[in-house]
Amino acid sequence: MNTERIVLAKRPEGIPSDDVFRYETVEVEEPKQDEIQIESLYISVDPYMRGRMDDSESYVAPFQLDEPMNGHVVGRVTVSNVDGFTKDDIVTGTFPWQKIVNIKAKHAIKVSQTDIPLYLYLSVLGMTGQTAYHGLLKIGQPQEGETVVVSAASGAVGSVVGQIAKLKGAHVVGIAGGSEKTNYLTEELGFDAGVDYQANDFAEQLAKAVPNGVDVYFENVGGTIADEVMKHLNQFARIPVCGAISGYNNTEIEYGPRIQPIIIKSQALMQGFIVANYADDFPNASKELAQWVQEDKIKTKTSVKKGFDSLPNAFRNLFTGDNFGKQVVQVSDNV
Amino acid sequence: MNTERIVLAKRPEGIPSDDVFRYETVEVEEPKQDEIQIESLYISVDPYMRGRMDDSESYVAPFQLDEPMNGHVVGRVTVSNVDGFTKDDIVTGTFPWQKIVNIKAKHAIKVSQTDIPLYLYLSVLGMTGQTAYHGLLKIGQPQEGETVVVSAASGAVGSVVGQIAKLKGAHVVGIAGGSEKTNYLTEELGFDAGVDYQANDFAEQLAKAVPNGVDVYFENVGGTIADEVMKHLNQFARIPVCGAISGYNNTEIEYGPRIQPIIIKSQALMQGFIVANYADDFPNASKELAQWVQEDKIKTKTSVKKGFDSLPNAFRNLFTGDNFGKQVVQVSDNV
Repeated sequence: MNTERIVLAKRPEGIPSDDVFRYETVEVEEPKQDEIQIESLYISVDPYMRGRMDDSESYVAPFQLDEPMNGHVVGRVTVSNVDGFTKDDIVTGTFPWQKIVNIKAKHAIKVSQTDIPLYLYLSVLGMTGQTAYHGLLKIGQPQEGETVVVSAASGAVGSVVGQIAKLKGAHVVGIAGGSEKTNYLTEELGFDAGVDYQANDFAEQLAKAVPNGVDVYFENVGGTIADEVMKHLNQFARIPVCGAISGYNNTEIEYGPRIQPIIIKSQALMQGFIVANYADDFPNASKELAQWVQEDKIKTKTSVKKGFDSLPNAFRNLFTGDNFGKQVVQVSDNV
Repeated sequence: MNTERIVLAKRPEGIPSDDVFRYETVEVEEPKQDEIQIESLYISVDPYMRGRMDDSESYVAPFQLDEPMNGHVVGRVTVSNVDGFTKDDIVTGTFPWQKIVNIKAKHAIKVSQTDIPLYLYLSVLGMTGQTAYHGLLKIGQPQEGETVVVSAASGAVGSVVGQIAKLKGAHVVGIAGGSEKTNYLTEELGFDAGVDYQANDFAEQLAKAVPNGVDVYFENVGGTIADEVMKHLNQFARIPVCGAISGYNNTEIEYGPRIQPIIIKSQALMQGFIVANYADDFPNASKELAQWVQEDKIKTKTSVKKGFDSLPNAFRNLFTGDNFGKQVVQVSDNV
């Protein structure tokens, strides 16, 4: 049986151009004894993947040239040789960008609840939800009445961060691009304020939204947006550093105001993290997140693009601000 | 009785010039009921005071124009109206730059051990020792076998940081300017390596000194020295941010490579602090520091300038690299 996949044809400079990706048709063999065969249903595109496209040392290994891109996927089992997995089971894991693929069963996680949109396992019930949960609660530690600011607030991680912060009794301010997104934050997600970084008066909007300063800044973007937030840090502010998407496609090192004087003045704590640091606590978080979603205390927005061929564009849109909510690609009609 | 004092005549731009300071002769009255009168013996000059000379909000209030500079002082009681203090007691506290001065007794701390050089109460047995102790042990948390790098390593704080880190079993690398200082680190203080930031091959020297990367970077200087250290951060590195002396006299905001990508890549923790954050634990630290000094496990170098008139120059030297060790000024012949 033949199937399609997308491989990394060359390493990108800046935002990945079309020729960075190559479509291939490959044969899928019968799965081995320790493998299951799955049909990919939804494939996640996430900002962290940009780092893996470069050939530099980081917390995750780089993608290999001429090998498939990979990332979080929800799939349906088509063939199983392994106890515990049967045909039509729904599984998630880090799998290649390939329509039909054999994977080692130990790399697949079976999903029990399948009467919800399955792409939620790529967002709030998957790694982005875990990222928001642990970064905010373990590092940010928002207290009732404190002010929490989150950037990329309408995105997959940011939207969950803000809603959890509200559940903890904080005054929550989200930064996003354009009034459609900022209105979504306040009208749909219950944020106290939405600040538009594309507006000419961004600095004034932000200052007005944080009259009591900033106690927690959940950092997703870096760059000049972050510089503006840093001006408002309260004493003992906490800054979980989850991402710095504004710089991911830079071809040169980006310069900004040095952070040390700001950190001293506010005696702030800034901590970088990746979700894997908190793997021990994933089950707890999963349970709590699922409950919040079920009780409609956490709402999510997912932007579903259709078609395997949409993957490169969906990925690029993460960096242009053209996406809204968690971006996934539906790669099968059979969902 | 008349005495001399030094007041802030105008706010400095860059390194404080002579006309920033004004010498005045004032009358000292009899101390009030809740006051003691002291003769200043040693006056401390410290980098953090530069921030107080500006009229900007910070963790300590700015010095007032036409009012005396103030800082840590060791003095001898000349007149006391207060129970618990008698003539010739030795006291420390934050007092004005004034030869004879009345101070509220509640602001003075009586020193019991007086058979040691009294200026040690302005360094290792005073706030700089406390700063090193808490910043390193509470935030840096060096583990046996880890690599600790400290900048401004021959200075009042840095030299104590490095020696405590050695006591905790770490591989300790100090950064200082010039071979006299770097030799002092290795030959006198027992550091594993001294790296000269003034050398052309500073980057190579540093890389060679940290073959296993950097687990703790105790930040005193900021600027390009810090940029170089950041290239070597290990996963879960800790960066206590104590000072950023390289930028204290800048008249414009200093730019450098943005820190967020570095912090994410290493999942590092960066935390600003001032010693007052740890006031609850001062007595414990005092006891331990005094014991280490007594057992000669912590050595200190003090640069003692003589004469009240030397204060402005001694202060300026903190920023030019001309001082070596803790800088104090002996303002009385009567020590």
